[in-house]
Amino acid sequence: MPTYAADLDAVREAADRIVGFVHRTPVMTCETLDRLAGRHIYFKCENLQKTGAFKYRGATNAVQKLTDEAAARGVVTHSSGNHAQALALAARVRGIPAYVVMPNTAPRVKTAAVEGYGGIITLCEPTLDARERTAAEVVARTGGTLIPPFDHPDVIAGQGTAALELLQDVPDLDAVVSPVGGGGLLSGFCVAARGVNPGIRVFGAEPLGADDASRSKASGVWVPQTAPNTIADGLLTSLGTLTWPIIRDQVERILTVTEDQIRAAMRLVWERMKLVIEPSAAVGVAVVLSDEFRGLSGVRKVGVVLCGGNVNLDKLYW
Amino acid sequence: MPTYAADLDAVREAADRIVGFVHRTPVMTCETLDRLAGRHIYFKCENLQKTGAFKYRGATNAVQKLTDEAAARGVVTHSSGNHAQALALAARVRGIPAYVVMPNTAPRVKTAAVEGYGGIITLCEPTLDARERTAAEVVARTGGTLIPPFDHPDVIAGQGTAALELLQDVPDLDAVVSPVGGGGLLSGFCVAARGVNPGIRVFGAEPLGADDASRSKASGVWVPQTAPNTIADGLLTSLGTLTWPIIRDQVERILTVTEDQIRAAMRLVWERMKLVIEPSAAVGVAVVLSDEFRGLSGVRKVGVVLCGGNVNLDKLYW
Repeated sequence: MPTYAADLDAVREAADRIVGFVHRTPVMTCETLDRLAGRHIYFKCENLQKTGAFKYRGATNAVQKLTDEAAARGVVTHSSGNHAQALALAARVRGIPAYVVMPNTAPRVKTAAVEGYGGIITLCEPTLDARERTAAEVVARTGGTLIPPFDHPDVIAGQGTAALELLQDVPDLDAVVSPVGGGGLLSGFCVAARGVNPGIRVFGAEPLGADDASRSKASGVWVPQTAPNTIADGLLTSLGTLTWPIIRDQVERILTVTEDQIRAAMRLVWERMKLVIEPSAAVGVAVVLSDEFRGLSGVRKVGVVLCGGNVNLDKLYW
Repeated sequence: MPTYAADLDAVREAADRIVGFVHRTPVMTCETLDRLAGRHIYFKCENLQKTGAFKYRGATNAVQKLTDEAAARGVVTHSSGNHAQALALAARVRGIPAYVVMPNTAPRVKTAAVEGYGGIITLCEPTLDARERTAAEVVARTGGTLIPPFDHPDVIAGQGTAALELLQDVPDLDAVVSPVGGGGLLSGFCVAARGVNPGIRVFGAEPLGADDASRSKASGVWVPQTAPNTIADGLLTSLGTLTWPIIRDQVERILTVTEDQIRAAMRLVWERMKLVIEPSAAVGVAVVLSDEFRGLSGVRKVGVVLCGGNVNLDKLYW
């Protein structure tokens, strides 16, 4: 049996480590969405997590696990999304510097958010190569620890804590659905949920415009994401070397949805649940409302993680 | 000592009557808003109430209190706002008809919402006179009971149940702030909160563009609202004959805010709390963030009711 990057014990240790630092987010329900889905849905509201996304769990676990000596030199990442904000705040809470490499094309609202949490930004050219090279330079200069956004055991274990809480609140779930980008949330959710309840069914939710995980899963071979095209801007990346084996072996299936389905689901949650969620979070909701998922038998109660709520309120999404 | 339309006993009876029919809404907090307000704020989330607004409490109390004989003839109201939807659903839950008189200028989204809850709509000319006359005709024809949106003892008592819950969750509040339009929520909140804790300070929150309550309170004499001009479309009406005496005698003060303050507060709650609130709800938040309120001494913990979350998502508010 292969060993995976994280297991239930690692998630439980992460939960003990981050308690008090992260919000225990509520689980919400909605009669209208239940009716549309044809079953009971339990929404784990990580949009209400600190920094507005589940990313704060993994970042906090990774930062809090550092030795004092390593921590003093700070943490480093390259990200323009929710992980950058999460790592910046997790570092500030521990009183250490967070160095964030961001592309010089990043919108001002994103750099401002990272700076608002005390992150120290280094701008670079907007290519993956430039980002990785710049991050390596920052690591060499500061001696800081690189904390990547998803492909890291402590990050995966930290994200899994959301599943532990969900199953404590609703122990008899038949299935859980998580959006998948790099796979940190889905893989963490998977090992935690199946660790607690080996019979639970775990599904990934992905935009058709960025369906590398779906194609990887269907073929059994890792497929990279190239030229993604979706409003779900948290789900643009390829699976990682640590997240892919877990998803390959333990997730039942990845279901995909169109941009129209994502928009409609997002609007439904804003309108009926009065919750601001980001497009990436709407992907999981859209999957549960899809004909394909509605057709699954044996799923009476399903958990869906609303992974984040960071949107640009200057624009309309529908 | 004058007798008011509702008191703590009436609110407690209402709470017993509506339990199980209404959501016990959560009380939320937000570090960012606490920092901006300079004190701890406890948000009573009536935007998460059924039909998206506190109105469902008062409507349910009034409908459930009817005798079987009266109930069978149905209920009647004239409203184009949250009360119409609330009464329609409250009636459907009891299995009786709700007749709703709406102006023929009401947007389709509002008539659709009432019909969605099973309400039977009669359209009329868009004048107060036509609405009242048409409602009287419907009452005469059906024998139904008129349940007005705020100026009714059972409605006031029902709205007060939100304050009971808030004070159960946070017993040591120093003050509460409620938006005020017709005054049903503010007066119900007031008698409930001061009934439980006579020392608690109760403030009303009003748009500068519809400041009849503020002017009434300042002069001690009821002043009607004429030509209101505000995005807070739930707060356009004058105070009622039952709500005014409570507000006159038991509310400490009504504070007003500008449209810019309302918009900014609304955006803050969407952005930082990830909660969809309507402009009327933002009025209470804006008051708590105002220099005037910040300058009050002796208020360490303040409760604010987020009265509703029904917005038109097709438009931007900022």
